Amino acid sequence: MADGDRPIDNGVNVEALIAAREALTKAPEAAQFKWRAACEWKNGTYSHSTVEGFYGLGQEQQRKTKFTFDADHPEVFAAEDRGATPVEYVLVGLASCLTAGIAAVAQNRSIQLRSVTATIEGDMDLQGILGIDDNVRNGFNGIRVTYKIDADAKREDIEALVAQSQKRSAVYDIVTSPTNVTVVVN
Amino acid sequence: MADGDRPIDNGVNVEALIAAREALTKAPEAAQFKWRAACEWKNGTYSHSTVEGFYGLGQEQQRKTKFTFDADHPEVFAAEDRGATPVEYVLVGLASCLTAGIAAVAQNRSIQLRSVTATIEGDMDLQGILGIDDNVRNGFNGIRVTYKIDADAKREDIEALVAQSQKRSAVYDIVTSPTNVTVVVN
Repeated sequence: MADGDRPIDNGVNVEALIAAREALTKAPEAAQFKWRAACEWKNGTYSHSTVEGFYGLGQEQQRKTKFTFDADHPEVFAAEDRGATPVEYVLVGLASCLTAGIAAVAQNRSIQLRSVTATIEGDMDLQGILGIDDNVRNGFNGIRVTYKIDADAKREDIEALVAQSQKRSAVYDIVTSPTNVTVVVN
Repeated sequence: MADGDRPIDNGVNVEALIAAREALTKAPEAAQFKWRAACEWKNGTYSHSTVEGFYGLGQEQQRKTKFTFDADHPEVFAAEDRGATPVEYVLVGLASCLTAGIAAVAQNRSIQLRSVTATIEGDMDLQGILGIDDNVRNGFNGIRVTYKIDADAKREDIEALVAQSQKRSAVYDIVTSPTNVTVVVN
C-alpha cells in the first residue's frame, strides 16, 4: 500500500501471472509458445508486416486485432522513409520489453509507478552493412537505455526494479545472447 | 535487363548506395550512426514508443514523419493486447531487414523481383521469463524465416540473393550475435 489507503495499481494482474507460473510449472508443454510475423515486400526497401496469431497454452491463439507495421530506409539512404528502419523496430522491442517488465516487477513488489520513460540509442558503423570493412559488424556496436522513473520508492529500489526486469526480459536476452536463425526459400 | 527492353527496377537506388559506399570509405566518421527510440509506459504492460530523429553523416537527421508504436502483452497473459508484443517487434525488424536486403541485392544483380513474402516464427519456452526454470532462456530458442520469392531468376540465384542479404543484414547480426546493452536509471 502507498498513499495511505490507495492500493498499489500499475495495471498489471500479478495474481494471474503468478497463477500462470504455477499452472505452467505443472504443465511445461503449455509454456511452449510460437510468436510470428508476416512480411510483404512492397517496393525498394519498403515492406509491410503483420502480426496476428500465435501459438501457446497448447493451441493456436487468435487476437481481436491485426497489428500492421511499415518498414523502410530513410531518405539519406536514397529511400523514401515510409516506415521506421528494421533496427529501430529492435530498439522499440527492447525498450517496450524492459518497460513492461518494470511495471510487472513493481506491481509484484508493491511499488506504485507514476511515470516511466526510456530513451534508447544504438550505435552502428555503416561500414559493416555497406561492406566497406569486414571487421565492422552489421549490427549495433552497443545499445544504451536510459530510464526516468517516478515511483513511490527509494532510488535503490527503483534501480533494483530495472535490474530484475533485465533479468527476465525476453528481448534483452535476444539482443545480448546469440539466437539461431534459419532462413529458407520455399 | 529482363523482359526484353524493360530495365530492372526493384525501387532501390543502387547507384546512390554505391556512391554512398565510396564516399563513406573516404570518410569513415560519417558512417557512424546512432539510431533511437523513446518509450513511454502507459499502464500495465502497455507502452507507447516513438521513432523520429537519428544521427548520421556527421549530423542530426530529422525525418518528416514521427513513427509511433504500441506494445503490450496478449490477453492470455492477463493483459489487454493493445499492441504487438516486444518479441514480435523483433520478428518484424528481422523480416523487414532481410526483405529490404533482398531487394537491394536483387537490384545490384539485375534480378527483377515480382513478389517477396516472408513468414517468421520464433520459439519461446515461457518457463524462462516466468522464472520457472533458470536453465531456460528468456528469449527465442530459435527463429525460422521462410521466403516465397517470385523473380526473373533461377532458384539458385534467388537462394544466393537471400544468402547475401543475411550476410549484410543489421538485424540478422543483432539477433545471431551478442550486443552489449547498458541500462541506467537517470
